Amino acid sequence: MTVKLALLGAGRIGQVHARAISGIGGAALVAVADPLEAAASTVAHEYNCRVASIDEIAGIEDLDGVLICTPTNTHADLIERFARLGKAVFCEKPVDLDLQRVKACLEVVREAGAPLMLGFNRRFDPHFAAVRKAIVDGKVGAVEQVSITARDPGLPPFEYIDVSGGIFRDMTIHDFDIARFLLGEEISGVQATASVLVDPRVAEHDDFDTVTVVMTTADGKQCTIQNSRRATYGYDQRLEVFGSAGMLTAENQRPVSIELANSEGFTRPQLHDFFMTRYMDAYAAEIRAFVRTISEGTSPCPAGEDGLFALALAEAAIKSVEEGRKVQVSEVLST
Amino acid sequence: MTVKLALLGAGRIGQVHARAISGIGGAALVAVADPLEAAASTVAHEYNCRVASIDEIAGIEDLDGVLICTPTNTHADLIERFARLGKAVFCEKPVDLDLQRVKACLEVVREAGAPLMLGFNRRFDPHFAAVRKAIVDGKVGAVEQVSITARDPGLPPFEYIDVSGGIFRDMTIHDFDIARFLLGEEISGVQATASVLVDPRVAEHDDFDTVTVVMTTADGKQCTIQNSRRATYGYDQRLEVFGSAGMLTAENQRPVSIELANSEGFTRPQLHDFFMTRYMDAYAAEIRAFVRTISEGTSPCPAGEDGLFALALAEAAIKSVEEGRKVQVSEVLST
Amino acid sequence: MTVKLALLGAGRIGQVHARAISGIGGAALVAVADPLEAAASTVAHEYNCRVASIDEIAGIEDLDGVLICTPTNTHADLIERFARLGKAVFCEKPVDLDLQRVKACLEVVREAGAPLMLGFNRRFDPHFAAVRKAIVDGKVGAVEQVSITARDPGLPPFEYIDVSGGIFRDMTIHDFDIARFLLGEEISGVQATASVLVDPRVAEHDDFDTVTVVMTTADGKQCTIQNSRRATYGYDQRLEVFGSAGMLTAENQRPVSIELANSEGFTRPQLHDFFMTRYMDAYAAEIRAFVRTISEGTSPCPAGEDGLFALALAEAAIKSVEEGRKVQVSEVLST
Amino acid sequence: MTVKLALLGAGRIGQVHARAISGIGGAALVAVADPLEAAASTVAHEYNCRVASIDEIAGIEDLDGVLICTPTNTHADLIERFARLGKAVFCEKPVDLDLQRVKACLEVVREAGAPLMLGFNRRFDPHFAAVRKAIVDGKVGAVEQVSITARDPGLPPFEYIDVSGGIFRDMTIHDFDIARFLLGEEISGVQATASVLVDPRVAEHDDFDTVTVVMTTADGKQCTIQNSRRATYGYDQRLEVFGSAGMLTAENQRPVSIELANSEGFTRPQLHDFFMTRYMDAYAAEIRAFVRTISEGTSPCPAGEDGLFALALAEAAIKSVEEGRKVQVSEVLST
Repeated sequence: MTVKLALLGAGRIGQVHARAISGIGGAALVAVADPLEAAASTVAHEYNCRVASIDEIAGIEDLDGVLICTPTNTHADLIERFARLGKAVFCEKPVDLDLQRVKACLEVVREAGAPLMLGFNRRFDPHFAAVRKAIVDGKVGAVEQVSITARDPGLPPFEYIDVSGGIFRDMTIHDFDIARFLLGEEISGVQATASVLVDPRVAEHDDFDTVTVVMTTADGKQCTIQNSRRATYGYDQRLEVFGSAGMLTAENQRPVSIELANSEGFTRPQLHDFFMTRYMDAYAAEIRAFVRTISEGTSPCPAGEDGLFALALAEAAIKSVEEGRKVQVSEVLST
Repeated sequence: MTVKLALLGAGRIGQVHARAISGIGGAALVAVADPLEAAASTVAHEYNCRVASIDEIAGIEDLDGVLICTPTNTHADLIERFARLGKAVFCEKPVDLDLQRVKACLEVVREAGAPLMLGFNRRFDPHFAAVRKAIVDGKVGAVEQVSITARDPGLPPFEYIDVSGGIFRDMTIHDFDIARFLLGEEISGVQATASVLVDPRVAEHDDFDTVTVVMTTADGKQCTIQNSRRATYGYDQRLEVFGSAGMLTAENQRPVSIELANSEGFTRPQLHDFFMTRYMDAYAAEIRAFVRTISEGTSPCPAGEDGLFALALAEAAIKSVEEGRKVQVSEVLST
Repeated sequence: MTVKLALLGAGRIGQVHARAISGIGGAALVAVADPLEAAASTVAHEYNCRVASIDEIAGIEDLDGVLICTPTNTHADLIERFARLGKAVFCEKPVDLDLQRVKACLEVVREAGAPLMLGFNRRFDPHFAAVRKAIVDGKVGAVEQVSITARDPGLPPFEYIDVSGGIFRDMTIHDFDIARFLLGEEISGVQATASVLVDPRVAEHDDFDTVTVVMTTADGKQCTIQNSRRATYGYDQRLEVFGSAGMLTAENQRPVSIELANSEGFTRPQLHDFFMTRYMDAYAAEIRAFVRTISEGTSPCPAGEDGLFALALAEAAIKSVEEGRKVQVSEVLST
Repeated sequence: MTVKLALLGAGRIGQVHARAISGIGGAALVAVADPLEAAASTVAHEYNCRVASIDEIAGIEDLDGVLICTPTNTHADLIERFARLGKAVFCEKPVDLDLQRVKACLEVVREAGAPLMLGFNRRFDPHFAAVRKAIVDGKVGAVEQVSITARDPGLPPFEYIDVSGGIFRDMTIHDFDIARFLLGEEISGVQATASVLVDPRVAEHDDFDTVTVVMTTADGKQCTIQNSRRATYGYDQRLEVFGSAGMLTAENQRPVSIELANSEGFTRPQLHDFFMTRYMDAYAAEIRAFVRTISEGTSPCPAGEDGLFALALAEAAIKSVEEGRKVQVSEVLST
C-alpha cells in the first residue's frame, strides 16, 4: 500500500518535503498546489505529480494526507479543513501566531480525530535525536541543566520579520520545542532578555535580534537558550544536556571537515550555511515519521499540542521581557 | 536529454549505483542484468527498470552507458565488449588482476574511443576532494609527505580473499589511487612491509592483513599508507598532506557526532561501520561525474590508466615484500 | 632588589602562593603566620622563611607586601591593618561577605594609598587571558553574548557552605568577575534562577547547588553563567564570547590528552580534578602580577573595586532569585 | 638526605635541567662547569651553586651524580670518567655518534657498576607516558602498528648539522627510542627513505631534511616514523598505537587552546614553538626519575643500552637509504 500525499505550498520548504517523499518507498506525492503556477509546475515536473488547486486536492478521495507549507496565516484554516476531511495533516510551524486561534484549531483537530504532526524538524536531527535517546537510556542520570545555542547566519528580510510574529515566535520557537524534547517534563517559569545588537532597524520593526531565555521546570531543572540573528561562522546549532551522572553534547556540523595547519594556526571550514543543508537528514526523517503515522497508525509526534506549548513559551518570554520578571507559563496558557 | 544507463551486476555495489542514478535528474536506469534473477528483479522493481541479459543490454541501441559491477574476472571482457559498441563504461576496480590483461584491455578501449571511468570512489569523498582542491589552490605549498590510513572493520570472508588478488590489489589499491590523486605527480619507487597479525588463517590463504607502504616520487616526495584488515572502532579512513607551507588533514567521519562526558571520560561514538555509509556521498558524486562524462563529453576521471597505475603500484609493493628492497614502478610497468 | 613578602594563612591556597613566590626571581617569602603552628612550620621549612605571628609580621619594616589567605571573616580587618602600614596587599576573594563592610574597607585602602589586589585567579589563566586579549584586538568585533560554564566536581563540606555566604558569593563570584573581565563594560541588570538538585541537604543549609544567571549591560550585551556543584567528568571551566565579527571559545583543559578508540567509541580522559591543578599556571601568573605591582608600581588588577562589583552582582542575583524579577545592580550598590 | 648533583655544560638544555633540580625537594645542584664562564656564572647565580672546573667536580667526594650536557664529542669520555668515580651519570643523547665507541663506553660503565641514564626526555612526556601505560594495561590488546610523526619547526644552523651526525642520528633518534618504548619488543628490520625538500643546501652538507622510516619486529609488528625539518604550524609531535583491541593517540599540544570562529572558519592557535616549551613537563619528570635512581637505587631508564639500540636503528636507516633495501638491525649491531 502506498501512502498518497498532497503538498500545499511549493516554496523552499515545500520542495524539501517533496524530495523527501520521493525517497520513501511506500509514499507518493500525488498533487501540489501553489498560487504561483511556476512553483507548482516545477515540483510537479520534478517529482512526477499533478498541479491542483487546494479545492481539487480536498476532493481527492483516496488521499491519505497533506503537507501544509503555505504562509503562516493560512495554517489554522487549512489544518481544520483537512482534519475535518479525515486526512492526516503535517503542518509547518506555527499553527498560528495567536495562542487562542491555536487552541481553537487543536480543538477542531481533536474532534475530527485526524492526526496532526507539527514541523519541528530538529527533533529528527540524528545528533539531537541521539542525545535524546541517550537521556532516555539514563546516560546522564537526572537532567539538571540544558543549554541550547542557535544562531542564524544573518537577518531575514524585514518584510519577513514584519509577519513573523517576532524572534521568539519565529526563531526561538524551535529551541522551545527542543527544550521540551530534552527536558522530558513541562516548563513552568520563563525569564527572557532581548536586545537589538545586529541591526538597529530591527527595533524599528518592533523586534529583537539577540535573546537569552532561561526556563525552569517545577522541580528546578534549568534550561538556557541563546539566540542571535547573526553568526559570521555559519549556522550555529548545538546543545548540551547536563545531569547527575554526566553531560551530553551535540556539536555543530560542517559540510566539509578538513583542517589546514599553517602559520595562522589550525583552521577548519565554516559550518553549514543554513537550515536547508544543516537539517537535510532531519527533514527526510521527519517526513518518514509522518508517513509512518499514516501507514502504521502511530501517534503523530511532535503533535499539535507541542506547537501550542512552544508558542506559549514564546508568549511567556515576550511577557517576561516586557515586565522584567519571571513569568509562569500558566499565566499565559490560562488566558 | 536523459542519459540512459544499464547496470551489469545487481549486488551490493550495483544497488548503490542504481540508487545514485535514481537521484540524478538527467539520468535513467533502463535495464539491469544479474545471473541471480532475484537480485536483478529487486533492483528492477525498486528503480523501475527492466531485467535483461547482458546480450539484450548490448543490443539496446540508444543506451548511453553501462556500469560494470560484476565479478572481477569478467571486467576486462565486458569493458572491451561495450567499448567496442561505443558505449561509455563505468567499471568497478580493478580492470583485471593481471597487469598485462589490463594493458590489453585499455588498448582496446583506446582504439574504440569510448570513455572508460574507473570506480575509485574515494576521489569523490567531499572531504578528500576538498583536500585535493586545497592542494591545487596552493594551501600547503609544495607537497612533501602524504600519509594515508585505511583500516577495514574486519576481515572479508576467506572465499573473497582467495579471488581478491591479495590485500595490495584489493584493499591498498584504493589508497594507491588516492596517493596519486594527492601527490599530483607519478610515483617512482615503492617499499612495502606486510604481516599477518589479525588472523593466522590469512597466511594459509597466501595473503597479508597488515601492511605499510612507503612510496617516493622522482623528486623525493614521500607517501605512506598504513592498512589493517581490522579496526575495533569502525571504518578508519583518513589522510594527511604535509607541504612546505602547511598541512591538510581529513579526519575520520562518524554517523552521529555527540559526546558523553562522565566518570569514564569524554566519549564520542564509533566511526561509520563500513564503506556503504562512509562513502555514501562519494558514490553518488561518482555516478554524477560519470553521467556528466556522457552528457557533457568531459574526459572520464579516474580513467582506465588510473586503474593501470594503481595496479602497477600494487605489483611493485608485492615485489618489494618478496625481495625486501625498494622496487621501481618502471620495473613492473615495463614487463 | 628583592620584593619581600609575608604570607598570612598557610592553608591550601596559602601553600599554592608560597610555591609561586619561590619560583619568581625577584621575590622572597620572608615570613608565614598561621594559628596552626604545624601548617606554618611546613611552609616555613619548605620555602625557607620564618614562622611569625601577624603582629610580628606587621612589625617587619622592610616588608613590601602581604598575601592574605586567612578565613574570610578576617579579610577586611587585615586588609585595613596592612594598608595603613603602607604595605601592598594581595587578598583572596572576597574582601567580606557584607557589601557595606567591603565599601568601608576599600575606603580605608583608598585613604592609605596602598595597592590592593584581589585573588580572582582566573583572569590569569592563559586561555581565558588569550580570549580577553583577542577581544581587545578586535577579533570578534563588538561583544554581544558571553557564556560561562563553571561546574565544581562536587559539593564542598556543609561546614564550609555555612560560612561561605552561599553559592553566588562563594562560587559564582569568580564567574561574575570573569563576566566583567570579558564584557569590558559594566553590568546593569541581573536575572537569576537557583535550584537544589545535587543534594537536598543543601536546602537545609539555606543554599542552592545549581544556578543560572543572565546579566545585561546598559546597551544590551548579554552574559549567561551556568553553575553546578557537581560534575562527574571533572572540573568544568570554559567560556565563549560571541560578537559581531565572530566567536571565541576557551575549552576545558585536561592533564593528559590522549584518546582511546575501541568498540565503545573514542574516549579522552576526564578533565582536571579541581582548581589546584586546573589553574596552577593562573595562580603563578597572578602572584607574578602582584610582585610586578610592587616592583614596577603598576596598578593592582584585579583591584579592590573588582571585588566590590563582583559581590554586588552576587547580591543582585540573590535578590533576583528571591523576588523573581530582573534586579538592577544600582539597586544593590546604592543601598 | 639530599642528592648532590653537578652540571657539566650550562647551555640551553643544561639550564633546563638546573631549573628542574631546583624544583625537587630532595636534590641540590652543588656545582656547574662550562668553558664559557658567563654561562656557568649565570646558572650558579640563578640556582645558588658554585662554578667549578670539570676536574674540580670530579674531586667532590660526596657528589652523587653528574648531568652531562656538553657537546656530543665529549660525552663518552665524560661518562667513562664519572662512571669510574662511581657517580651516577645522566647524559644527553647520544653517547657518541660512533656505534663502536658507544659499545666500548657502555662496557666501561658496566664494569664500573655506575648507573647511566640517557636523556630521551620524550618517554617522560605525560601524554606519551600515558599511552605507554595504557598499552601495558592492555587497552589496545596486541600492538600491531605504531605511527610517529615528528616535525621540527625549522632547520637547525648548518654548523650544527655538520656535527650532528645527520638527521637519523640527531632527530629521528628520539623517535627510534619512542618506537622501542611503545612496541615493547625489539625491532629487527628497518626500511628508510630520505629526501632533501626543505632546503637544497642540506644536500651540500650531506644530510637529508625529510625522512620516512618503517620498522618491523620479528613477529611482524610495524612502526612508521615521519620526520621533517620544517613545520609552519609549530612543533609537530604526536603518535598513534594501533592494536588488536583498539587505537591510542597522543595529539599535538599547544600553549593556548582557544578557538576563533569567523568567516575564515574555526581557527585554533599554533602548536608549541619547540621542545623547550613542548617538553617542559617531560624534562622535569626526567630529572626527577634520575634523582630517584640515586636516592632509591632504581635502575636507570632509559639506560645506556637504550642509547645503543636507538643509534643502531639510525645506522640501519642510513644503510637502508644507501642500499635501497630492508636492513636487519643485527647487520649493524654485529659489526
